[in-house]
Amino acid sequence: MGPHPAVAAIRLAVRRVLHDILTDHAHPAPPSPPPLVLVACSGGADSMALASALAFEAPRLGIRAGGVTIDHGLQTGSAERAGDVVTRLRELGLDPVESTAVTVGREGGPEAAARDARYAALDAAAVRHGASAILLGHTRDDQAETVLLGLARGSGIRSLSGMAAVSGADGRYRRPFLQLDRQTARKACLVQSLPVWDDPHNADPAYTRSRLRHEGLPALEKALGKGVVEALARTAQLSRDDADALDTWARQAEASVRDAAGLLECAKLYALPPAVRRRILRRAAIEAGAPAGSLFARHIEEIDRLITGWRGQKAINLPGRVVAQRQGGRLVIRQG
Amino acid sequence: MGPHPAVAAIRLAVRRVLHDILTDHAHPAPPSPPPLVLVACSGGADSMALASALAFEAPRLGIRAGGVTIDHGLQTGSAERAGDVVTRLRELGLDPVESTAVTVGREGGPEAAARDARYAALDAAAVRHGASAILLGHTRDDQAETVLLGLARGSGIRSLSGMAAVSGADGRYRRPFLQLDRQTARKACLVQSLPVWDDPHNADPAYTRSRLRHEGLPALEKALGKGVVEALARTAQLSRDDADALDTWARQAEASVRDAAGLLECAKLYALPPAVRRRILRRAAIEAGAPAGSLFARHIEEIDRLITGWRGQKAINLPGRVVAQRQGGRLVIRQG
Repeated sequence: MGPHPAVAAIRLAVRRVLHDILTDHAHPAPPSPPPLVLVACSGGADSMALASALAFEAPRLGIRAGGVTIDHGLQTGSAERAGDVVTRLRELGLDPVESTAVTVGREGGPEAAARDARYAALDAAAVRHGASAILLGHTRDDQAETVLLGLARGSGIRSLSGMAAVSGADGRYRRPFLQLDRQTARKACLVQSLPVWDDPHNADPAYTRSRLRHEGLPALEKALGKGVVEALARTAQLSRDDADALDTWARQAEASVRDAAGLLECAKLYALPPAVRRRILRRAAIEAGAPAGSLFARHIEEIDRLITGWRGQKAINLPGRVVAQRQGGRLVIRQG
Repeated sequence: MGPHPAVAAIRLAVRRVLHDILTDHAHPAPPSPPPLVLVACSGGADSMALASALAFEAPRLGIRAGGVTIDHGLQTGSAERAGDVVTRLRELGLDPVESTAVTVGREGGPEAAARDARYAALDAAAVRHGASAILLGHTRDDQAETVLLGLARGSGIRSLSGMAAVSGADGRYRRPFLQLDRQTARKACLVQSLPVWDDPHNADPAYTRSRLRHEGLPALEKALGKGVVEALARTAQLSRDDADALDTWARQAEASVRDAAGLLECAKLYALPPAVRRRILRRAAIEAGAPAGSLFARHIEEIDRLITGWRGQKAINLPGRVVAQRQGGRLVIRQG
């Protein structure tokens, strides 16, 4: 008798990603050491399921499997809990296993600050251990929530494209469960008798993602039907491909709309599709020093009107003390 | 003292669109008759506000203003109500005004069938009266709902692009209120003492859109903040521009990936960005006879694997008895 379907599903998802890692990181001939893959584990159901699948699959493919847990220091007893997670990961047979304490700042709000600290620590762990990859336990449900969070920004299809299956430096981060639902991960823990820890933050209505998970998405499912999570995840993939293609187009078109002095020619910009033109304008503003995070759709629209609705407007002030103005048929964007 | 801000807002929105219509339909020199613009009016707050603004602005621009109300025959007393709407539109000074009874079929579900019957009747009315345009009362809130309905299909950014400000044959349909919220339209009716009729269908939880309006969207706003409707409407506009640009790219690229016999060359398709390639595949399947409405993302993905994951797959059956297969480095899509 084979494993429970939920366990089979998590193992298959991990096996596929390990295969990809072996292909991508074809390492030199022996006696080089076998590659190391780490799992980032909070002790919650998603990442515990991931750790268990990694522990099972890695040895079968000649891969070493380790684990990292991050102590964010945001809740009392977080150090003890991190210690418990280390114990559980060791019990699964992972080696090396470590707990890393981080200091969470304030920049960008509590969720963003915690995320920044976490990834910095994971990056450092990958380098320290010479890991080929770090697996992250994000599920299809997390992806659906991320798409809705992006939708709320209203800043276009790049923010609808959610999390990538492969991201980070050299494709370091891999998300094997991005097409797997949270319920399957939870079930896999249950049938394998893995203890899991439910982060109280995940149920705290002070957090946007938590409100989305427990109220927003269920209400949307009630109105639109059960397929919403899957539809959101598919939207993420399609939006990502579309955004990539349009970025490519904008990069290629940019060279053709600059004059000999490197200035943007308004007449040539005007002839481009709005979607391509606005991407070029956005890139130019960022290159001139405008911080990407402070540059909103309305800023780009205002620059665009220098091209499409020219009636002698004054210079436009952008974030980062960047100024955009039209001069003699050229668009000049620079720090003022 | 000027008009109430809500009344000023609806009039400004209509004035802008009437200006566009005059510009687009620059009509021959006098003595040709002045252009006619019709409003499609259900008697609800949005379209009654629209009718009132049209009645006010049109004469000032030398435009004749008329109205049409559609009797869908789906509720008892619908004929009497249509008669009431005709009376109200005449009281606003619109001329011509007419009520048109339609027969709603069943194709595509009750909402789609009613919509099809309604637009067919509006098209006929426009032709009969020689109207330059028909104004529709869709608001920013309707747009947000449409984006969420598209999101639930998970079929990509075209379905996220909502309703266009200008659509139909020769840009016949115009939506002046697409950036105006429903509350403003309602307020404008109130302060102008215009009686409005609340369609019970709009509150009937049997309808997806109604569930979305009364439960889904409010829950999403509670989780994500009050800006959700605006963000969804902005997403619609950005997605529409992006989808248009990618369609243009796909049309241009299509010629370059066909061989002398007009067949699609797999190697050339492979070199294109996935977003462009999939659009070409979709167009080819539709051209071969697959009905667009039955062609889902998973069909296109399966065809795409003949290009990107070729391992000798068999022919793929698509809706409309269309078959896709790879033969000698060419992709052949045709009715089987």
